[in-house]
Amino acid sequence: MRVLGIDPGLRNLGWGVIDAEGSRLSHVANGVCHSEGADLAMRLLSLYRQLSDVVGQFSPDTAAVEQTFVNKDAVGTLKLGQARGIALLVPAQAGLSVGEYAPNKVKKTVVGVGHAAKQQVEHMVKMQLPGAEIAGPDAADALAIAICHAHYIRAPGAMMQERRVRA
Amino acid sequence: MRVLGIDPGLRNLGWGVIDAEGSRLSHVANGVCHSEGADLAMRLLSLYRQLSDVVGQFSPDTAAVEQTFVNKDAVGTLKLGQARGIALLVPAQAGLSVGEYAPNKVKKTVVGVGHAAKQQVEHMVKMQLPGAEIAGPDAADALAIAICHAHYIRAPGAMMQERRVRA
Repeated sequence: MRVLGIDPGLRNLGWGVIDAEGSRLSHVANGVCHSEGADLAMRLLSLYRQLSDVVGQFSPDTAAVEQTFVNKDAVGTLKLGQARGIALLVPAQAGLSVGEYAPNKVKKTVVGVGHAAKQQVEHMVKMQLPGAEIAGPDAADALAIAICHAHYIRAPGAMMQERRVRA
Repeated sequence: MRVLGIDPGLRNLGWGVIDAEGSRLSHVANGVCHSEGADLAMRLLSLYRQLSDVVGQFSPDTAAVEQTFVNKDAVGTLKLGQARGIALLVPAQAGLSVGEYAPNKVKKTVVGVGHAAKQQVEHMVKMQLPGAEIAGPDAADALAIAICHAHYIRAPGAMMQERRVRA
């Protein structure tokens, strides 16, 4: 099963694609969409087109988007919301199911603790996807979301078992 | 010139289409898109499809979206942002310019004061678009946004002159 993870943001929207066969994960691709355009509508259209290209190129079976709603201020939250709207729309339009995971659930799944630092997430993503060259922190977060989604759709509780085996 | 106004919301997204020839305005259509779907991604897709149908059916030349960012809480602001993302994307995808107006600018243009009540906005919209049957408060707000956009794109300062003539 091919999984697309998306870390939404208006300026930088991270994406990551992995393949999950049982408990085996492998890296497919990752990157960051940068919004371009004179106004907000054009920037959102630019994100929409880039993300649609990713879906078209890699044909994921399912997708997941980070469920953030805490931000510094209302203006920032609204901007994030607009980018999230695009991040949720594009896979839904391609007929994919779209999971949503809170950041601390993603961290807990990938790192083992809910309040891990960004570098720690990136480190664990690299550990679980050997050989992946990561396009930056937003792409690392997107891969972490994809890993989290792969675990939760595989089987409820599977992650816990795997962690015990590894420990 | 045909103008589409959009009052974004995740549950109810109001839209209104008017024709503007010089200072003459006439009503074309208005309505409310209701988001449907089991999850957020499906609801956004449903709004996207309904709004795309409106653009396809009425072929506006330009569009405007209400620029709200003040909301009760971060969750509400994020929801609004997601709907706004769709509201901005759809006309941009159709190649339209998309204006953004703060609610008090819309009210000041349509009613004459920045802090008018909803009923007052609806009343003035009906006055300026005789014969329009309005689908509800969100559709009335969308028509008000379209009226505001029609005035600002016609000529800078034109609204002020017209108000003096009418007064």
